[in-house]
Amino acid sequence: MADGPNGEPCASPLDLFNSIAAQGELVRTLKAEKASKDEIDSAVKMLLSLKMSYKAAMGEDYKADCPPRNATPGSNSGPDATEASEDFVDPWTVRTSSAKGIDYDKLIVQFGSSKIDKELINRIERATGQRPHRFLRRGIFFSHRDMNQVLDAYENKKPFYLYTGRGPSSEAMHVGHLIPFIFTKWLQDVFNVPLVVQMSDDEKYLWKDLSLDQAYSYTIENAKDIIACGFDINKTFIFSDLEYMGMSSGFYKNVVKIQKHVTFNQVKGIFGFTDSDCIGKISFPAIQAAPSFSNSFPQIFRDKTDIQCLIPCAIDQDPYFRMTRDVAPRIGYPKPALLHSTFFPALQGAQTKMSASDPNSSIFLTDTAKQIKTKVNKHAFSGGRDTVEEHRQFGGNCDVDVSFMYLTFFLEDDDRLEQIRKDYSSGAMLTGELKKTLIDVMQPLIAEHQARRKEVTDEMVKEFMTPRQLSFHFQSFCFDT
Amino acid sequence: MADGPNGEPCASPLDLFNSIAAQGELVRTLKAEKASKDEIDSAVKMLLSLKMSYKAAMGEDYKADCPPRNATPGSNSGPDATEASEDFVDPWTVRTSSAKGIDYDKLIVQFGSSKIDKELINRIERATGQRPHRFLRRGIFFSHRDMNQVLDAYENKKPFYLYTGRGPSSEAMHVGHLIPFIFTKWLQDVFNVPLVVQMSDDEKYLWKDLSLDQAYSYTIENAKDIIACGFDINKTFIFSDLEYMGMSSGFYKNVVKIQKHVTFNQVKGIFGFTDSDCIGKISFPAIQAAPSFSNSFPQIFRDKTDIQCLIPCAIDQDPYFRMTRDVAPRIGYPKPALLHSTFFPALQGAQTKMSASDPNSSIFLTDTAKQIKTKVNKHAFSGGRDTVEEHRQFGGNCDVDVSFMYLTFFLEDDDRLEQIRKDYSSGAMLTGELKKTLIDVMQPLIAEHQARRKEVTDEMVKEFMTPRQLSFHFQSFCFDT
Repeated sequence: MADGPNGEPCASPLDLFNSIAAQGELVRTLKAEKASKDEIDSAVKMLLSLKMSYKAAMGEDYKADCPPRNATPGSNSGPDATEASEDFVDPWTVRTSSAKGIDYDKLIVQFGSSKIDKELINRIERATGQRPHRFLRRGIFFSHRDMNQVLDAYENKKPFYLYTGRGPSSEAMHVGHLIPFIFTKWLQDVFNVPLVVQMSDDEKYLWKDLSLDQAYSYTIENAKDIIACGFDINKTFIFSDLEYMGMSSGFYKNVVKIQKHVTFNQVKGIFGFTDSDCIGKISFPAIQAAPSFSNSFPQIFRDKTDIQCLIPCAIDQDPYFRMTRDVAPRIGYPKPALLHSTFFPALQGAQTKMSASDPNSSIFLTDTAKQIKTKVNKHAFSGGRDTVEEHRQFGGNCDVDVSFMYLTFFLEDDDRLEQIRKDYSSGAMLTGELKKTLIDVMQPLIAEHQARRKEVTDEMVKEFMTPRQLSFHFQSFCFDT
Repeated sequence: MADGPNGEPCASPLDLFNSIAAQGELVRTLKAEKASKDEIDSAVKMLLSLKMSYKAAMGEDYKADCPPRNATPGSNSGPDATEASEDFVDPWTVRTSSAKGIDYDKLIVQFGSSKIDKELINRIERATGQRPHRFLRRGIFFSHRDMNQVLDAYENKKPFYLYTGRGPSSEAMHVGHLIPFIFTKWLQDVFNVPLVVQMSDDEKYLWKDLSLDQAYSYTIENAKDIIACGFDINKTFIFSDLEYMGMSSGFYKNVVKIQKHVTFNQVKGIFGFTDSDCIGKISFPAIQAAPSFSNSFPQIFRDKTDIQCLIPCAIDQDPYFRMTRDVAPRIGYPKPALLHSTFFPALQGAQTKMSASDPNSSIFLTDTAKQIKTKVNKHAFSGGRDTVEEHRQFGGNCDVDVSFMYLTFFLEDDDRLEQIRKDYSSGAMLTGELKKTLIDVMQPLIAEHQARRKEVTDEMVKEFMTPRQLSFHFQSFCFDT
């Protein structure tokens, strides 16, 4: 799974224009052939989503007979080609001009997903009997697709499974990479469901200047950090694409099924691939899609094709799963449901990019207590005033303060967080004090992670990565009814 | 492996034009970056081959600043768009206007391969101590790439392996499908080398209106006909792509390696894919390429990457292996060598297409003696004269007579074949007599095949298709030095 923005090119306006035309054609064909309602709905949704991406990129509606102006055919002008004031998000690019970060409410409209509202959070609480995770309480997981359907099934004692992933592009993971895993562990605990974790080392081999062996070695190193999040070994299967493809009787078959039902036009529109891209990149989206279908894991789900999948991930991964949801009904599988998180901000501010190659852009899982202290004090973008006097008088701005943002991710105590917000906004709390609070939270959190990671043995990694049966809630319902 | 022409679209002149431009760019980049000689040579050869295809399609040389006239961008005009008098050959289309069939000498020039001449045939005889197979003696295997290199290695006690394949598009195989297998069995016997046979059921699933289960069932049925050719179970591994991809620690890794080194531009130029093609077709060429590299079969060759591969196949498969040979040095593997056969003509004549869906276009492996007799008498295109009198006076034309062509494939006795040629050409032999000779050859040949196929049990198929060690000549040299 792509692990967040890294500045690769995305769809040019002309690509998007052409994809919309092709998708419109598909909708007309499906209607003419009297395809199933589900199939037509999927195609229409994809069409609307492409049109929204077009509007976001061009600042004006798609018009069938009016190709984008200033578009250079064949060149990939990417999101920078337009001076749109809107945010841009795809698996390789996240762009916003606001220090508050992406406008997530607008993104929900643009992507056609649904907001995780109070009602849904209450329903999760009722279904699990557990207090909702702080990521839910605080809108960090803010958007979803079909979560109510997952809960309907769950309440009817039908099992589901979790799928998330990581693109292992280096040994170094930072705290931001842990967000989906921390939340996924909570979901696994409160729902008692199996989890599959895709390590897309094939993707990283294709996109980066890496050898297969290097990509695989990053898989193993990153798997240790993932295991250190506390996943239940009896309910969790972590797999390297490079390894599992050659070990599974189900994975490749689903990859080919998906690849038969997605055209180059479609991936060009969704991911911005060009004719100069290698055929590995072009076909990769099917490999990220395949774990959304339960028979990709015969060792866990036997030949069951209808076990619902729920994918917790950062919102930039949504294009992969829009494609997956478009394909699913056409190959007879249920659409995966999704829970989307916001992005974890870089220390330098929510509008800048975090980078695994810039050690100062985030707190890394290998940082010492001293490094954490220095990084926060030196690099965390502050919402405070220029002088103590001004700060006391006018107060700081939590909306752009990265230390405060990090606390919303990692400080468990809601009351204390609210008190900090009030005190910092009023000027009662100074920037140094706010930073110290964050340092005090992050130092033990990272130290504890490092201690847990130390306990992860090679044997444990091997067991997590061995295809095998998993135990889970409603298992008997799954196979006996 | 694609099993011969089936009328799918091929590269439009504009696609070819664009591919040549892109390939030229690659050559310039490689030279600028001072890439290895091997790498540059490969890229230059590919460039030349694309330019030859362009000339064949357009009837004029490629000129960098002059895109093809009358070309409709985006549409795939295929070989019919030009009224070229030249033949056209790619994995899906074979077109000639001559009743004698394709001009193979021209094809050698166009593809940039080498003729199998008397000298090479003599060398094979010396190396193996066996009389050359009739397919060699009669120019049915007529073209090669690097066969002298294979013989060099063999004479230095270095092993090589054979790779051929079949695209299982239906249960029905005709005698033409056996040509590569009959010859490959002979090669296996005289060189004592291991053989891998790819059943590209994934390809047939992608190209045809088939389910995965159907494609796999054709694999099993076709495997029985292949086994009935007499392959040595201790030296032969037959594999379904759909199955073996999930059983091999080496196959997928090589597929991804190849996919990283081939762009959409390249496959568009070579295979004529368009933006409307599914991503499965676009990435498939890597799957046909991967068995050319020995570490795709760790059960046979362990981690050896340098064991030379020799591919006997019909010439229409060459584009796949031109691509493979282009990629090989860039991923550190030896280029596969090739032996190319001519096409097996349809009963209706060498310029028409054989089709598995037209039972009268060839002799099928399931035909009864009576069906063979009827088909040959009724459908085999004759080079005879309109009346017996004229025939006696002017003689028949063996160059266009399909019964005579079939005899060149299946009648072992050279002297007798030559006598028939003389008698038919002089008018001493009538068409009915020639057809009777063919019937007398084909009836027992098919009956014997059917008897051998009956003896092929499910257990044998299973064993042929189980990844396992094979025994072969120079095996100890392979692993001990």
